[in-house]
Amino acid sequence: MAIDYKRELENAARNMIFVHDPDLLIRMMARMMVSKARILHASFFLQDKTKDGYALTVSKGSLSKKVPLDLIRIDKDDVLIRFFKSHMSRSLFGREALLYSEAKSALKSPRVKRETKQGLMHVLYQMELLDSVVCIPSYFRDELLGILLLGKKANGRNFAEEELDFFIALNSNVTMAVRNAQLFKQLGVELERKHQLFVRTTVALAAAIEAKDHYTHGHTTRVTSLSLEIAHRMNQKNKKIFDSKFLENLHIASLLHDIGKIGVPEHILNKRCELTVGERNRIKEHPMIGVNILKPIKELEASMIGVRYHHERFDGKGYPEGLKGEQIPLIASIISVADSFDAMSSDRPYRLALPKSHAVNEISNLSGRQFCPSITDIFLELCKEGRI
Amino acid sequence: MAIDYKRELENAARNMIFVHDPDLLIRMMARMMVSKARILHASFFLQDKTKDGYALTVSKGSLSKKVPLDLIRIDKDDVLIRFFKSHMSRSLFGREALLYSEAKSALKSPRVKRETKQGLMHVLYQMELLDSVVCIPSYFRDELLGILLLGKKANGRNFAEEELDFFIALNSNVTMAVRNAQLFKQLGVELERKHQLFVRTTVALAAAIEAKDHYTHGHTTRVTSLSLEIAHRMNQKNKKIFDSKFLENLHIASLLHDIGKIGVPEHILNKRCELTVGERNRIKEHPMIGVNILKPIKELEASMIGVRYHHERFDGKGYPEGLKGEQIPLIASIISVADSFDAMSSDRPYRLALPKSHAVNEISNLSGRQFCPSITDIFLELCKEGRI
Repeated sequence: MAIDYKRELENAARNMIFVHDPDLLIRMMARMMVSKARILHASFFLQDKTKDGYALTVSKGSLSKKVPLDLIRIDKDDVLIRFFKSHMSRSLFGREALLYSEAKSALKSPRVKRETKQGLMHVLYQMELLDSVVCIPSYFRDELLGILLLGKKANGRNFAEEELDFFIALNSNVTMAVRNAQLFKQLGVELERKHQLFVRTTVALAAAIEAKDHYTHGHTTRVTSLSLEIAHRMNQKNKKIFDSKFLENLHIASLLHDIGKIGVPEHILNKRCELTVGERNRIKEHPMIGVNILKPIKELEASMIGVRYHHERFDGKGYPEGLKGEQIPLIASIISVADSFDAMSSDRPYRLALPKSHAVNEISNLSGRQFCPSITDIFLELCKEGRI
Repeated sequence: MAIDYKRELENAARNMIFVHDPDLLIRMMARMMVSKARILHASFFLQDKTKDGYALTVSKGSLSKKVPLDLIRIDKDDVLIRFFKSHMSRSLFGREALLYSEAKSALKSPRVKRETKQGLMHVLYQMELLDSVVCIPSYFRDELLGILLLGKKANGRNFAEEELDFFIALNSNVTMAVRNAQLFKQLGVELERKHQLFVRTTVALAAAIEAKDHYTHGHTTRVTSLSLEIAHRMNQKNKKIFDSKFLENLHIASLLHDIGKIGVPEHILNKRCELTVGERNRIKEHPMIGVNILKPIKELEASMIGVRYHHERFDGKGYPEGLKGEQIPLIASIISVADSFDAMSSDRPYRLALPKSHAVNEISNLSGRQFCPSITDIFLELCKEGRI
């Protein structure tokens, strides 16, 4: 059972640097100790976020030997924690790690003070409770990040110095990697939070702008979810033709598709009787007004395409550019179907809503004329399944 | 000059895991090799982003011995690169690292094929050019991330096996850390990009909403920069009373301070004659309309305070709540001064702009009545310096 410790340590370091999950890192270490060095159990208590205590993160070993789960937490004022926070082990034994056998001998030594012995007795009792013969603390700078507890060796022998050195080095590497992983995780969380902030602010502002148009309450939200539903279904059927970036762009484009209406006078948007040709033309400006609003934001370029072309028609009779068939970007064709369906099935200033079944028929009838057939097919499929 | 290699390696690993700058990591390694192991020079060629070649990232050693800077790049088809990409060193010498002396001996060996010898000769020539006796490649999975080139030892001796092992292990750790650092950097860049996307989208939508109010072109931008200028000056004078979070909140709050105007009818906003009491009250609703728009976004809570209270007055005669003096949050008091100054110094539907000096006087006169004196003081200071 000879172990090339140097090699194992190197391999472990190499593997660990790319694991960005603290719990997994600790589990890897504990598993390695139990399986390679044949220790009955290895458990790790990791400082929790509130820094109020240490939680049992990992407990490896045979079921009967593991640290029981009801001992799942050690308080920050616990005797074991205080022992390591004060670096008592270093001053007594010349190293941070604590061995049960060394502590036991110290109790008999005339050179150890009485109070120290009392403290040690509590620590030993705690180790017995946890069925551990070695405790290895993990420090990061002045902070105690965690404690690794090791059970006896399966063959009953003592730990060799070389073995202990290896455990201490491995544990120290894991501590560093855990700290790194925590940082990495934090960055990831911040990134997600920032993305959500961006999306939610866009939703809120788009909704505010929509509120200007009294008759379209909830329109943006409905168009957005319908567009995304169509795209997801297309992805299922066509082996992920859309990547996550496309879906993100579609999301933003549907949220902002009518943003340009902010530039159309309220009295035209809310007019109850028929619009004049001039008024109609004013409304037809909204996709390009939207483009002008979004133009300064380079990252929204792809989404802007959806805003720009969501009123184009498959037969080329749409606006603003009269693009035809395949010339119309998919992102715009998807929004077009979702937008038209929602417009037909809700009240407008100049007419009441169509019944849903009529609106669905209308979409079907206009497939290949107003709408891209491959998208209406998906839309009609979703309707049949009752998903719309 | 005995080196405890194990200890050095451990220390290096510990230090490196928290360095999130690839270049710095490589520099640390090169410096260590030159200073601790007394090597005449150490240079590192790192794969560049386009993966078209390898750029000289670090070159440590005495000036005369360093790899010259005009050899700053090795093409991906270079003989040295191809040698390591094909793992030729492993098949010839049983390890990835290449020693000049071993390669030289191989040229004389009858067991090495003729073509191989030809390749080796080119490699040796390249090493001579780079004044190197050891090349250590860095792999990550199947990719060659870089090559470390080492010069002769200062004492003229050969490298000991133990030393070589140490260099290889250290270089392998650095490679991992570099990869990790690259990932970290990338996350940081994405986070900044996402933040910019959020800010710029907010700017664009706020500007679009402002465009509804024909007379306030550029108002939001000016209020935002004036508010931030006031806050920065307050920070300079009062030892950073505001943290970066406050400044970020102020930025967003000033961008969105008038967002609620989207809920006020256009004909009231753009009315040329005097407003009726009823119309005035409609306008006074805009802070609370803004609050309602932003309420769903938890992260904007602090910014919302600025939107809500930017029309409160120091003497308690403002709206919506009639808060007084210290009750008014600083974020709102800052926007209030910036907003009022910009409103006075630009044209409005019902009056022309005041000359700038009059507007400044007006702010000064209203200090302690409409405005918080500590903020008008800062504002007036900036005016005196010609910064406004």
